[in-house]
Amino acid sequence: MSKTSRGCTGTELFILTYGTLVAQLCEDCKKDEDINKVLDKMGHNIGTRLVEDFLARSNIAQCRNFYETAEVIAKVAFKMYLGVTPRVTFWNQAGDDCSLFLEKNPLTDYVEIPDKHSNLLYSTMICGILRGALKMVRLQVDIQLLQDSVKDNKITEIRMKLMRRHKAVCKVEKEQKYSVGT
Amino acid sequence: MSKTSRGCTGTELFILTYGTLVAQLCEDCKKDEDINKVLDKMGHNIGTRLVEDFLARSNIAQCRNFYETAEVIAKVAFKMYLGVTPRVTFWNQAGDDCSLFLEKNPLTDYVEIPDKHSNLLYSTMICGILRGALKMVRLQVDIQLLQDSVKDNKITEIRMKLMRRHKAVCKVEKEQKYSVGT
Repeated sequence: MSKTSRGCTGTELFILTYGTLVAQLCEDCKKDEDINKVLDKMGHNIGTRLVEDFLARSNIAQCRNFYETAEVIAKVAFKMYLGVTPRVTFWNQAGDDCSLFLEKNPLTDYVEIPDKHSNLLYSTMICGILRGALKMVRLQVDIQLLQDSVKDNKITEIRMKLMRRHKAVCKVEKEQKYSVGT
Repeated sequence: MSKTSRGCTGTELFILTYGTLVAQLCEDCKKDEDINKVLDKMGHNIGTRLVEDFLARSNIAQCRNFYETAEVIAKVAFKMYLGVTPRVTFWNQAGDDCSLFLEKNPLTDYVEIPDKHSNLLYSTMICGILRGALKMVRLQVDIQLLQDSVKDNKITEIRMKLMRRHKAVCKVEKEQKYSVGT
């Protein structure tokens, strides 16, 4: 993706800051697994706060099911903050498990990972952000980075599995509604 | 500033990531002075890369003097990446030393600094970014955060002092031109 195709300049600043942050963690942590954990934790922290901004901007109030939630994440949230739209795919039959496929991952635009960091999952913070944001709208979702675009075949795949909806939502769920907003 | 007045959503993501980064450094570093140094160094690293994006987007080629450079930083760069426009003021007579005044600093929107971090200069990364970006257009500028809006009187003041123009530019300077672009 060319830089000029990104609508939002703050995204560029975020991407560069993220790169510097990961580089710093590579200096500070001995094991890649520890870096991944820190990135996920930081992302979770960011997600719990970013969700308010997202709801205010997007004006999205409710999703009726996890299909809709996944679509909103891909088509509204990713587009809004990173300027890209992942493909939502590989749904399981129960409709609670799917993958987000990013053919272009802007986070990795400037990135080369040294061989010694072969276990680093560079874009892990995205998983944390999604987990944190979804928690705030009462969805417990397990989110894993299955493929990272700095390695292998240049595709980023994020797997999302809905674990449970929290109590306040379960009541509403009887009417086939749960809140993406509050 | 209300969040909705920010044109750019990536900025929100940057601001939250920055907050998480500073929090992490507060855990990792013993002294606030060390945190300030790391933030400045990271900023410098970001600035040297961000400048390319800035020049591509802004289409700005040349500034004739440091007054123009400061105006471009305030009215184009700050506006573009942080959605705010600082006031350029307190020029010295030589025209190589001025202050950027931010009455609203979006970086500090969500921030409270614990008392034990009284020497933390929260927004220091901005100084590093400016220094790195200006270096890439061959201006050596000393940049200091004189007031930080998380403390005292809620104003952010960034002092910029032009130290020297690098050789390649000095030649051009005879014609009263130096490059903000390349």
